[in-house]
Parts: sequence; structure tokens; C-alpha cells
Amino acid sequence: MFGSDNQAGASEPVLAAITAAYSATGQDAYGADDYTAAGAAAIREVFDTDASVFFVSSGTAANMLALSAMVDPWDGVVCHHQAHVLLDESTGPALFTGGAAMLPVPDRTVRMTPDQLDDMMTRLPNDVPHNIRARTFSLTQANECGQVYSVAEVTALNEMAKSHGLSVHMDGARFANAMVELDVHPSEATWKAGVDVLCLGASKNGAVAAEAVVFFDKTLAENFEFRMKRTGHLTSKARLYGAQFSAWLADDHWRDLARHANTKANELRSAIDELDGVRMAWDCQSNESFVIFEKALFTRLLDAGVSMYDWYPSAMPAGETLASNEQLARMVTSFATSSEDIAAFVDLVMSA
Amino acid sequence: MFGSDNQAGASEPVLAAITAAYSATGQDAYGADDYTAAGAAAIREVFDTDASVFFVSSGTAANMLALSAMVDPWDGVVCHHQAHVLLDESTGPALFTGGAAMLPVPDRTVRMTPDQLDDMMTRLPNDVPHNIRARTFSLTQANECGQVYSVAEVTALNEMAKSHGLSVHMDGARFANAMVELDVHPSEATWKAGVDVLCLGASKNGAVAAEAVVFFDKTLAENFEFRMKRTGHLTSKARLYGAQFSAWLADDHWRDLARHANTKANELRSAIDELDGVRMAWDCQSNESFVIFEKALFTRLLDAGVSMYDWYPSAMPAGETLASNEQLARMVTSFATSSEDIAAFVDLVMSA
Amino acid sequence: MFGSDNQAGASEPVLAAITAAYSATGQDAYGADDYTAAGAAAIREVFDTDASVFFVSSGTAANMLALSAMVDPWDGVVCHHQAHVLLDESTGPALFTGGAAMLPVPDRTVRMTPDQLDDMMTRLPNDVPHNIRARTFSLTQANECGQVYSVAEVTALNEMAKSHGLSVHMDGARFANAMVELDVHPSEATWKAGVDVLCLGASKNGAVAAEAVVFFDKTLAENFEFRMKRTGHLTSKARLYGAQFSAWLADDHWRDLARHANTKANELRSAIDELDGVRMAWDCQSNESFVIFEKALFTRLLDAGVSMYDWYPSAMPAGETLASNEQLARMVTSFATSSEDIAAFVDLVMSA
Amino acid sequence: MFGSDNQAGASEPVLAAITAAYSATGQDAYGADDYTAAGAAAIREVFDTDASVFFVSSGTAANMLALSAMVDPWDGVVCHHQAHVLLDESTGPALFTGGAAMLPVPDRTVRMTPDQLDDMMTRLPNDVPHNIRARTFSLTQANECGQVYSVAEVTALNEMAKSHGLSVHMDGARFANAMVELDVHPSEATWKAGVDVLCLGASKNGAVAAEAVVFFDKTLAENFEFRMKRTGHLTSKARLYGAQFSAWLADDHWRDLARHANTKANELRSAIDELDGVRMAWDCQSNESFVIFEKALFTRLLDAGVSMYDWYPSAMPAGETLASNEQLARMVTSFATSSEDIAAFVDLVMSA
Repeated sequence: MFGSDNQAGASEPVLAAITAAYSATGQDAYGADDYTAAGAAAIREVFDTDASVFFVSSGTAANMLALSAMVDPWDGVVCHHQAHVLLDESTGPALFTGGAAMLPVPDRTVRMTPDQLDDMMTRLPNDVPHNIRARTFSLTQANECGQVYSVAEVTALNEMAKSHGLSVHMDGARFANAMVELDVHPSEATWKAGVDVLCLGASKNGAVAAEAVVFFDKTLAENFEFRMKRTGHLTSKARLYGAQFSAWLADDHWRDLARHANTKANELRSAIDELDGVRMAWDCQSNESFVIFEKALFTRLLDAGVSMYDWYPSAMPAGETLASNEQLARMVTSFATSSEDIAAFVDLVMSA
Repeated sequence: MFGSDNQAGASEPVLAAITAAYSATGQDAYGADDYTAAGAAAIREVFDTDASVFFVSSGTAANMLALSAMVDPWDGVVCHHQAHVLLDESTGPALFTGGAAMLPVPDRTVRMTPDQLDDMMTRLPNDVPHNIRARTFSLTQANECGQVYSVAEVTALNEMAKSHGLSVHMDGARFANAMVELDVHPSEATWKAGVDVLCLGASKNGAVAAEAVVFFDKTLAENFEFRMKRTGHLTSKARLYGAQFSAWLADDHWRDLARHANTKANELRSAIDELDGVRMAWDCQSNESFVIFEKALFTRLLDAGVSMYDWYPSAMPAGETLASNEQLARMVTSFATSSEDIAAFVDLVMSA
Repeated sequence: MFGSDNQAGASEPVLAAITAAYSATGQDAYGADDYTAAGAAAIREVFDTDASVFFVSSGTAANMLALSAMVDPWDGVVCHHQAHVLLDESTGPALFTGGAAMLPVPDRTVRMTPDQLDDMMTRLPNDVPHNIRARTFSLTQANECGQVYSVAEVTALNEMAKSHGLSVHMDGARFANAMVELDVHPSEATWKAGVDVLCLGASKNGAVAAEAVVFFDKTLAENFEFRMKRTGHLTSKARLYGAQFSAWLADDHWRDLARHANTKANELRSAIDELDGVRMAWDCQSNESFVIFEKALFTRLLDAGVSMYDWYPSAMPAGETLASNEQLARMVTSFATSSEDIAAFVDLVMSA
Repeated sequence: MFGSDNQAGASEPVLAAITAAYSATGQDAYGADDYTAAGAAAIREVFDTDASVFFVSSGTAANMLALSAMVDPWDGVVCHHQAHVLLDESTGPALFTGGAAMLPVPDRTVRMTPDQLDDMMTRLPNDVPHNIRARTFSLTQANECGQVYSVAEVTALNEMAKSHGLSVHMDGARFANAMVELDVHPSEATWKAGVDVLCLGASKNGAVAAEAVVFFDKTLAENFEFRMKRTGHLTSKARLYGAQFSAWLADDHWRDLARHANTKANELRSAIDELDGVRMAWDCQSNESFVIFEKALFTRLLDAGVSMYDWYPSAMPAGETLASNEQLARMVTSFATSSEDIAAFVDLVMSA
């Protein structure tokens, strides 16, 4: 139950919206339908700007298509050493971009700083065309380690990126969770803070499968439909995504869903602080928690049916190491997590 | 209303299945869920064989991923001169396969024959590595021109393909419509007739977005999840597709939907035979009809709100040409087409 | 001895230039050397314009790199049905361009006409992003069938291409042979006639391995060194190519070499006209001759050691077919072909 | 004069071999000529085994083509943090392999150890298909930092690689320099030590442009000509490379050239040890020396015409940093470096 927010179902309003959209007939295909238009309009309204908006079915598709619009095949994308686009999307970046590479910031900390970015860019081999040309900065919000960057941090990072000639991509697979934590207007945390393209995910927060690519810099969107088509992401009955987004954004439903997930994560973290055999690996906000278990306990919990993932050893910050009897794990809450889920986990730990 | 079967909505059982699947929680992500397993099992049962089955959101994704598992980057895919994989999927074939090319059979007829395939393969430049190496044969059923190949025809084409060393891919975006027309067991028209990989489409026939890649030759499926992942087609909450397929295949629902579409197409074609200013371009079965209008009539119908597509001039068979005042068009019926839709069209033609 | 102009060696001035260039030391690498600069300057002088010039080792590399600078990955390149870039460069076009496809003009004639190009473009499916977007026109000079387009023809074809929004690429693997035949200034046959990018080949005409990509439209060259580098075509000791080109272009050496090859081809063609069992398939200029042999004779000649290639049956013009006892073949002369070679061939035919 | 071994010319025997090869005519094209066969045979003899051998014009082409035969598009190549294939070949790896990524060993030392490799592989995210699958280990000999791995070290690294399921690629751009240093039979340092594919470079050591891809594991070579052709690396008059390799390998010419370069490097390093304002960054063997200058001195030397490259700051070993007035540089000797070159450098430093 803490394995991934992808394991949850979808919210009632989202499901009702899908049913309503497909009970209608006579809608044009490939995104020229009313639901796609309405979903895009809803996003523009929420972000209070005239963005170009496209919808796809997966976060990988959203991130990869967005990056493909931002780099040439001989370019590189600067990112955190644990970024999803670096580690968890296979070799998608090279496929979609025609060859571009990921360039992780070498500092192994749980959040990036402008100084780290500056230092990396200053030291990066830059004798083109031999070396890879850094072209775009990808920032994840909420980030790869379950933390949330403040608006000031996002702004400072993006300013540093732009001072080095990089455009800015934001992987917002859990953007809603960050918004609830930050409690600011979405525009403040994105285009007003220097984000050029946002991948806004709904799938992990109550939707069936719905990700938006939001081009605040509309010039980058010029050929996007070509990109979607040839990668198989121009869905024929495309209303699926717009319908979900309209319902998800309406009446702050997306915030309510995310707030629930964050609240349950906070409950979980508070509980962990009281338990033996398990501790937070570092401070977390949002709905992801990174936790260190005694290995024997971890195994017993898995055997008892607790769903959670052992996590990449490389996520540990530089200088911190796990003891040989310790296991790093990730625990994720969702809109569907209940207090009973947490209580059951606590009971299992205490009785283990 | 005759523009595309993609313009229809989805059937009630399919929508109910989606709602049910996402009302559950605690399902594993990325296809390791119960719904995906059930959908795949349903396909194996319908085809009466132990195939490897994967689900994606679009027909382009299904076809391209399937072909990428069947060819090397220096290979070619032999297909009809009007094949969807040749004309309508942008440069997707090259992207997914790493470079493979489409090799259309040059004869411009509305259906392929084994002799055409033999003649093409015999004359094809084959001095590798300079020339492109033909490796796979892609057959569309129901075909690109609204016709259906008999089981004997499929068998003969595939035998010819295999005699030239080609594996066989079937683009079954409208496979259900063909099945209703042929009235045979699905196994007879596919793996028993030499098909190695079938792309089975539900999207055009009552689903929201659901396409299956069915590997009758399971050895070709070895790396398929890698292919899905890096192209962004490994959906996280993947139960969407399996849930739809289970509902679609249950109780012959898929056949009922297709039978309705075909029946309405036959009604439309009968009506056209009685009308002035419009005639069939060639005989059609299935739910697609290719029609020649007097241009003035065509324009008036579009102005009156009839939804239909003007069609590629290159689809006209060799030796047949349109008069300067004629327009080729495609009209498609779906599970949602009503007799009223056809009557309205007839009235508009007669009053035009 | 008539198999290919690639079977010949290299001319003495070219070889001497290589030896001289590499007897020097202290030259910068990767094209920043004096020889590369001199070779590029020589080309600009010959063409009397300020082009951007790059050198590579093979015609495939030149053509593919040039096309990659002219199209997007979702585009198509219009070409002759027998074009080298279509048939003889494997799936290089898709690799270098990131996916672009070749779009052959369907008319099966030995030379293209503006009307054919116009008709093709008018009928080409153009509903983007679904269909492939035609973006560039590739013309071969001397052409694929051993003919040479007049300046007027080149101009008319290119004007038609540009009226349809296509840029113009010229595959000049045998451009020298065409120049000798046309007897015009190189600028007249290229940029003044609408060519944007010329691939100028020396390898088939006396060089070791030297092909130039000449951007008359310099804006297209912007990222060319990135393209060269990542495809492995940015040679480290790059002086090889410039040295060859300087020697090749000096004192009309390239024309002298090509004139010899053309003259010998004319001698061969005259001889063939007098022989039994062999005839020209169609009129040829330049150093390529397409010939129809009686099959038995063809086999006996190969057995006797004559080097020549059987040729693609698909090269036969529409409406013309080979008899069952006939064989299409290609015979190519070079700067090294001697009258004795031709006499020996004639003797073998007469004694066969 | 110390910028790169690529700045030197070519040796007399190599140049004579090229002239001889191209003074002949009647050789088959695309590698089916006598010179290519002889060059390949010479390599098999030198390595005392039955390898599959192919020739290309650049080291990037050799490395990239080799790797493309060793990985799938969803795989990764493990390498040193300063590997040429990681830093200096643009995004070539992704292009040639269809998307594969480089996976550098994180330890920032000047030579890799089996423990580092083991640790990396143990910690590498390996939840496929989400994570990139490590598939091949690429080792550079002489290495990226001017050092040479002993046979025992190569063997131990390769055994560790294979214990993790990785095949082994050796980037031998300066393999000759390593051989001279090690003074062992080439077979001992390659296939007997676990190398599956060797890229053997001659270009940096006296050739014009000649790199061999040597498949000790011949099964990996199956489709190599397809790979060469579509990347533009199947040169038409291919005898260029074989001719060079035959001359280069004959009579230990390759070792003599490399011995000269190494000897001059040792002279240079001895001189540096006696100079003020410059010191070795770390111990070097082979013909590359990594040197730390006082910045002011470095600038004065460049101004005085010394050719050398400032080098990547990231090459500094972990824990070692440059002072703000220091500059890391690379100095390379070649077969053409003279004692006068070194003396001139010493004079300039002392007079600066």
C-alpha cells in the first residue's frame, strides 16, 4: 500500500468525467475534440497564462517528448543524480531526442543548489563538437528525494541555469503534492520562476492516465504534434486526457487529492519517528518518504504483505552510508491512503 | 458522423469496466496487475493459443512496437501501397525500429495478391548491405481499402511471404470488422494462417483507447517491455487496457459492436447505389466505404455538416482516374452509427 | 574493369598531394588544418561563390549528412525511383536524419521531369502530422540511369521543387562527368540553377576517398560539425580530404579525369552498337552505360573475367520489359579505363 | 607540437603503401579487395587468433560501431569517468547503438580497479526495464589519463566485468603505446585477458586515418557490414585502410613508431621534473602526459606558440584540487616528436 502512488485507483470525479466524455459521440479525433480543448483551457486558467498544452498517457512520454522539443541530438540535459529522467525512463531520452544524453550534477545531495549547478557547468567539458553540449536543465518538483523546492530555490536554480544558456524543464509528476506543500499560486512556482516547459502529472494523484506537457515558452511547441504522432502518443480518441484534467483541476480537486496524500505521508513520518528499527533517511515533504529499515525488519514486513520498494543505494547522500544490516526503502502515500493503512503498518512494525 | 470510427465514444460495458478497475486500489503498476493479466488471458482464450500479449494506447504504438520487434534497423517492411504503417504513422517506423524502411508493393490495386508479392520480392534490389533487406510482411485486415481478405487469401499471402524469408505482421486495427465479415474462428484468420504478430485494435470499435500486440511467435516478444518502456508506452496504472479488453471480448461484445458497424456500412453502401452524384469507388466490406462524389455535391455535404474525409488520390487503382469534377472520399461507420445517420445523409444528398 | 569507377585506383597528382600533406607535421586536427582550408577555398573558387564546405570519406556519408541538415525527423525526401539515396545507402537516411523517409517519384522513367514532380507532390498525402511531410528534393547529376540533366532541366526541376516548398539537394557523386558533358561553368549547373546543397564526389573520379558537402545555402550548415562528429565523420587528421580536393581541382585535373572516363564510355557505347547479343538499354551520357545482354552471353563474359554488374530489374522504364533470355547490366568506365579494356571486351563478345 | 598525436603526419612506409595500393586498378570495392584482406590477415597474425576484422576512418567510428554490436538500445556501457567514449565522441554512442547510454564508474581516480567496478555494478539501479541495463564494459588502453594497465589488471577488470554479465570492449586508440610499455605479446593483453572486441588505432601513431575493429568474439560481428554501410563507413575504395595497416604492422613498424613516442614522452616528463612552474599531475606512461602549470606560465607558453591543450578540470582525482593559479594541461608526443621539440619547450619554460 506504500509501494507507489501508481498503485492507487482513480478518483470518482475523474472516472465520471471519462464516462461522460465517451458517452458522447461525434467528437473529432487526435485532439481536435471539445474535451481536449477544455482540458487545455483549464490548465491555462490554473497557471494564468497562455501556454501551449498537449496531453499524453505516461510521465515518461511527457518528459521525453518535452525534452525532445528542447534539445538537439548532440545536446545534454543537466539533472539531479537521482532524476527520474536519468534513472527510471530507460534510454528514452536518447530515443526521443535522437541521441541527447543526460548530464547529472555530480554532487550527491538530496536537493540541488545553484552553486552545484554553477560548479558543474563551469567544469563541464565544453569543447564542442567533441563534448556534449549542455542545453537544458531538468528540475523535479516535488523532487526525487521527496523534498519540495521553495519558489525562491526554483527561481535561483533556474536563473543559474539560464546564465549558463540552459532552458528549463520541470518534471512535475508530483507537482500537485509540491503545490500543496508550498501553498502558492502555480504560476509563482513555474513560469514566473523561470520554467519554460512543465510536465504536469495527474496519473499519480487520482487520474487514470493523464499527463500534460505545458509549454510556457510556446515557441518550443512548434513541432510538437509531429513528435507526438511519430512516437505513437497522438491518441485517436484523445478526449480521454482532457476530460480527466478538466475534472481533476475543477474545484481544487487536484489539491484536495494531493493534500490527502501529503497529510497521510506526514502521519506516516510521525509514526516512523516513534518506531524502533526504522528511521527517516532524510527529511521529506510531499507524499514520498525515504526510510531506512533494519534489514530483518524490512524483510519481515514484505513477507507480511507490506507494499514498499527497496530503493537505490546510490540515493544515499555523499558521506552517508548504510550499515550492513540496513536497507533503504521508499514509501509513498496517495489520495487513497487511509489512516488504517498507516495503523496497520505501525502494528506490523511493532509486532515484528 | 462518417469521418472515422475514432469519432465515436465507447460502449457502456467498456466504460463500466474502466470505472470498476480504477475503483479498486492496491494494484501493482506497469502491467503487473490483475486486469492486465485478465485481459491477456481473454485474448489467449479468444485466439485459442498461448500468445505473449501486451497493451498500449494507440494503433500507431502497437504497430510500431510490433514491427520494431520483427526487424533490424537495416531492414525493410513490405506492405500495401496504401498501408497505414506506410502513409499514416508519420516516420514512426524508422523511429521505433532504429531506421527500418517501408517497402510498398508497387501494384496499385485495392488488395494484394501473392503474385504481386512474389514479383516484388523477385525484383527487389537485394545486394546487401547496400540495399535494404526485406524482412517482414505487414498485412492489414480489414484492409486499407475497406476490403477483407479471406482466410485462403491470408494463408496464400503469408506462405508467399515466408517463402521469401519474411515474417508476418498483421495490422488488425479493424480486425473485429473482418472477423464478423469472415465468420471464422479468430485463430483461423491469424496464427493458423501464418500470422506471427497481430496488432488487435479495440479503439475503433467501442473502446476508449486499447490496442493489443499479440505475439503468436513468442520468441519475438523477448525484449518487448524494454521497447514499451523507452517509448513511453509502459503506462503506470496499466490496468486501463486489460480492463477494456476483458469487457470488450466478453460475451462476443466485440463482435456485436463490429457487426453493428458493418451492417450500417452495408446500409450506407446500398443507399449510395441508389443515389445520383455518388458511387462506390470499388466494392467494400467491413465498416469503411470508399466513395466517389461529384465535387460540387461533396462540398455541399461538407457545408451541411456531413463528417467524412476526402481521401488520398493515390488510393485509386492503377488505370482508374477520377474525372476533374470528382472527389474520392472515405466514409466510416461505427458501433454508434444509427439508421438515422444514414437517412440524414441520404436526405442531404437528394436535396443537395 | 567495367564493374564500377570505384574499382579504379587514384590519380598521380592526388596521391602526390596526400603524401605531401602527411609529410608535414604540426597541423591542427579535425579540419582546422591548412589543407582542409585550401580544399574548401578551391571549391569556393571553382563554384564562384561563398559556400560552406565540409569533407568526408564516403558518398553515403556526404549524402546522408547533407540530408540530415535539410529535413526534420518527420520529413520526407523526394527522389527518383532509382536514386542511390533510396536504394543503395541501406537505411542510412533514417539513421542520419533521425527518421526521415525517402519518397520516390512513382513514374518509372530514366529521368525525372517537372511534371512528374508536380503530379507527385499534388497527389501526395499531406495531412500532417499523420502523413510524412515532403521537405527536400534530391536530384542526382549525372543521374541514376547514366544520363545528364541540362541546366535548363535542373532549373525547371528545382523551380518546381521550390514551388512545393522543397529545398534542393544534389547528389553529385559523378558531378564531374556531368560537367564535362554539359560544358558549362559549375555555378550554372548548381546554385544558379537552384541547388541548395551539393554533394561533390571525387572518389569515383580519381581520388582515394574524398567527398565534399557544399552548402550554397550556408544557413543549413549551422550545426554540421556536430553532425559530422557524432557520426564518426570528423576525421582527426582531416587534411586527407582537402589535400585531395586541392590537387583534384587544380588545373582542371578533375575535368580531364572525367573527360577520359566519358570518352571511353562513348567508345564502349559505339562498340556495343555494332555488336550482336548486346544493346543499350537506353541512351546514356556520362561514364555509366546501361546495357541489355543475352543472358548466355552475359554469363560467358562474367566467366571470362569481365567485371560488370547485373542491374536492378526495377530500373527498366515502365512499359519496357526484358525478355526471359535477357539481362540488364551496368558498365562503368573511369579515368583509368583504356582502349585496350574496350577492345578486350569487344573481342570477348565477338568470340563468345 | 604537444597538442595531440593527431597533429603529426604519417610515416613514410604508410604513405608509400597508400600510393602503391592506389596505383593499382581493378580492385573490388567496399572491402572485397586484396589490400583489405591483407590488412585483416596481418592483424590476425599479430594477435595470433582468428578474429573478424573491419576497417574505418576514425576512432569514433570504430568505437561507436563496435559498441553498437555489443549492446541493445536499452543498454548501458560501463566506462571510466574520463573515457573518450563518454566525453569526447559527442552523442555518438546513442546514435550508433540506437539509444544506449554511458554509465561511468563514479570513483574519480586515474585508473579503474576491479573493486570500483564491482561496487558500481552492485549499487547500480537494475530494475529493468525501468533502469538502464548495463551490458558492456569499455576499457581504454593506454588509458584516459596516460597510464597503462598491466596484463594482470586488464584480466582482473575483465573478469569482474564478466562476473556481472558484461562483455568487454577495449578502446585501443593508443594500444601501440601500451604494447611498447608492457612489452608483451598483443594476444596476452587482449583476448587472452578477456577482451571481446578491440578497437585498434593506427591514426594517432603514424597512419593517415586507419582504425580497425577486431572481433575476438566473432559472433558479435554478424551484422557489422550493415552497421558500417548505413553509417557511411563502408568506404568504396576501401583498400586505403588495409594498405596502411599492412605497412604499419610489418616489421614491427607500429612498435617502433610507438616506442619513439613513448621515449620522447619520458624525456619530456623527466624534463618537467626539473622545471619550475610545472609538474606532473600524476604518474604517466605511454605518450600522454598530464601536467599542472602555473597559469601565468601556461598562458605565456601558448602565446609563445607551444601547442598543448588545457584539460578537463573533472579529470583531477577526487580529493585533489587545482590551486586558483594552476592549470591542468595535456601534452602528447608522437612518432614525429623530436628532442629539439622538447628542448625548445624547456627553453621556453625556463625563459618565461
